[in-house]
Amino acid sequence: MIIKCKKNLLTSAINIVSKAVSTKTTMPILECILLKAEGGKVYLTANNLELGIETVIDATVLEEGQVALEAKIFSDIIRKLPDSEIDLETTSDIRVDIRCEKSKFTIPCRSGDEFSPLPSIEKENSIRISQMALRDIIRQTIFSVSDNESTKMMTGEYFEVKDNQLIVISLDGHRISRRKINLAGENKDVKVVVPGKTLQELSKIINGDAEDMVDIFFSDRHLLFEFEDTRVVSRLIEGEYFKITNMMTMGHSLAVKANKKEFMGIIDRASPLIQETDKKPIIVSVKNDNNLYVRLDTNLGSMKEEMEIEKEGDEIIIGFNPKFLMDAMRVIDDDDVNIYMMDSKNPCIIKDAEESYVYIILPININTDVYA
Amino acid sequence: MIIKCKKNLLTSAINIVSKAVSTKTTMPILECILLKAEGGKVYLTANNLELGIETVIDATVLEEGQVALEAKIFSDIIRKLPDSEIDLETTSDIRVDIRCEKSKFTIPCRSGDEFSPLPSIEKENSIRISQMALRDIIRQTIFSVSDNESTKMMTGEYFEVKDNQLIVISLDGHRISRRKINLAGENKDVKVVVPGKTLQELSKIINGDAEDMVDIFFSDRHLLFEFEDTRVVSRLIEGEYFKITNMMTMGHSLAVKANKKEFMGIIDRASPLIQETDKKPIIVSVKNDNNLYVRLDTNLGSMKEEMEIEKEGDEIIIGFNPKFLMDAMRVIDDDDVNIYMMDSKNPCIIKDAEESYVYIILPININTDVYA
Repeated sequence: MIIKCKKNLLTSAINIVSKAVSTKTTMPILECILLKAEGGKVYLTANNLELGIETVIDATVLEEGQVALEAKIFSDIIRKLPDSEIDLETTSDIRVDIRCEKSKFTIPCRSGDEFSPLPSIEKENSIRISQMALRDIIRQTIFSVSDNESTKMMTGEYFEVKDNQLIVISLDGHRISRRKINLAGENKDVKVVVPGKTLQELSKIINGDAEDMVDIFFSDRHLLFEFEDTRVVSRLIEGEYFKITNMMTMGHSLAVKANKKEFMGIIDRASPLIQETDKKPIIVSVKNDNNLYVRLDTNLGSMKEEMEIEKEGDEIIIGFNPKFLMDAMRVIDDDDVNIYMMDSKNPCIIKDAEESYVYIILPININTDVYA
Repeated sequence: MIIKCKKNLLTSAINIVSKAVSTKTTMPILECILLKAEGGKVYLTANNLELGIETVIDATVLEEGQVALEAKIFSDIIRKLPDSEIDLETTSDIRVDIRCEKSKFTIPCRSGDEFSPLPSIEKENSIRISQMALRDIIRQTIFSVSDNESTKMMTGEYFEVKDNQLIVISLDGHRISRRKINLAGENKDVKVVVPGKTLQELSKIINGDAEDMVDIFFSDRHLLFEFEDTRVVSRLIEGEYFKITNMMTMGHSLAVKANKKEFMGIIDRASPLIQETDKKPIIVSVKNDNNLYVRLDTNLGSMKEEMEIEKEGDEIIIGFNPKFLMDAMRVIDDDDVNIYMMDSKNPCIIKDAEESYVYIILPININTDVYA
């Protein structure tokens, strides 16, 4: 294989496919990027067997062929080269020469035949959404997937297509996040569970523009995201996702409307008193005036603050993990948030009028008499 | 103690004195900041017994007094408060209330009497230099102090005042850095060794302006830096510093003048091939043309590159730890560097014509026949 290509194109392509390179593996080939030169193009592929990414750049192909290069060293070398033309040539089965201006590198390589190709996905069933919408959906749900691999299903996000809407749900046993957007055209119903890691990596490489689209193809065991020159293939998590309908339709005895920034400010100011080891709840109370009272007592000290709110309904005293409140607030783009509560034992629900987003947070059990 | 002060003033003062707060200690008082309110001022002090810092801010003092507060929690709380007026009040021997707008914090405190005051320094012997000069000197020498506490003397920097010049030297057994600047006025001769950590922290809190001055007072066991509202007191490292005169006056058989940016570029491009565990030297050769040849061969691969230079003298092949070359290049502000070498066994010297800076780097032993 002998190719000439532009440094900036190669760097961007490496950055994209690197998201699917294994870092912890005993199989060295999974730490590689495959370069395949064919008909004026170079295809770059990485595949950790859960997630595979392929992208393509223009190049001058002097000799077609393919080669697998250890991703870290290859990417480090290319990134530091001058912004100029790069020559890459396999000089034997185990050596590649890289030249750029006066620099010449020789690094080891592996045969491209060792590399596992991406699974081929039938393109029958698909939806199309903007890169911006996809990125927002991921940002607004990804924080509540579990990172505990022993409950595999919780490490994924539920994607459901129904009545030409895309519904995305994540949950970790303490909270649930749900986003819903309308899809254009007619769409077949689908239910799949997508690994959280796939979505995390995907959201780093989609550009987030409202005009640029992503096609998502669903097959039995895989999902394919196609956009611009890039294809992202992910395994699905197999099995039945959790039923959350009961939680979603729960009633409330108190509705609060609060300025989001102000509420976040209070939780943020309380954070210096929070220690990982002592899981003290932040106490939220609504009394018979138009204030929301927040307090926190930990081994490090105590804090109290209140803010004006609009409200309708009963008084309440309820305790939360402050991080869970903060995580939800942080991804809501509205200026005001609507918080619905029942009592100190039942979860609170944060949602907008159209339920385009719904965040459900379980409370922490507290002795409400102490805080009355 | 009851005070009112501005949040931004208090935050800046905390940031300054925090540099002298102990983080690893079994004595809780060393993790504290002392606040002392007296005559319309609040003095903040931290002292880890090696390094002590005191600074002062304007405040409304409603009741004089002093109190010691755990630095981390105090600083975290203050930093997150709104940019407004802060009320601070000791409510008992063990509690402080902090109020700002609608926030109210209560945190534990310690008696100010537990706190070790800064040692008092006789102000007899001093020099005055600009904050910019002091910051430059530290930046241009600090990288070659040793962090190995078992050779205590190498963890410090030698400050010598002689013939109205300030000479600063650091060395770690593999390299030596020396900076020299002229002092204004008449100055007494001095020789002291200042802990590297003191200089590191100091350079974070001096503003680096050419117009703002620092007074440095020397006593037998301590050094005092005074600037604006801040006093930094450091213990000295006691004992005789290393004699380096022989190294400094060594001859050379080859003088090279190279573009610094270009040379740094080459070393930087070689860096992906360097592994911590395999200490392969970067090989620098000068032959009978006007090029400097650089090559590196490691387990990860090999690289070669050359650059045009001006030179005078013999041919050479010499190996270096690339990090040491890079560290020196990075702090030199000139466009071109002059490198003087003798042979593959003797150190290279990088210096300007006036010897305002001199960097000496020991080579790594190589078999020169292999690279000839």
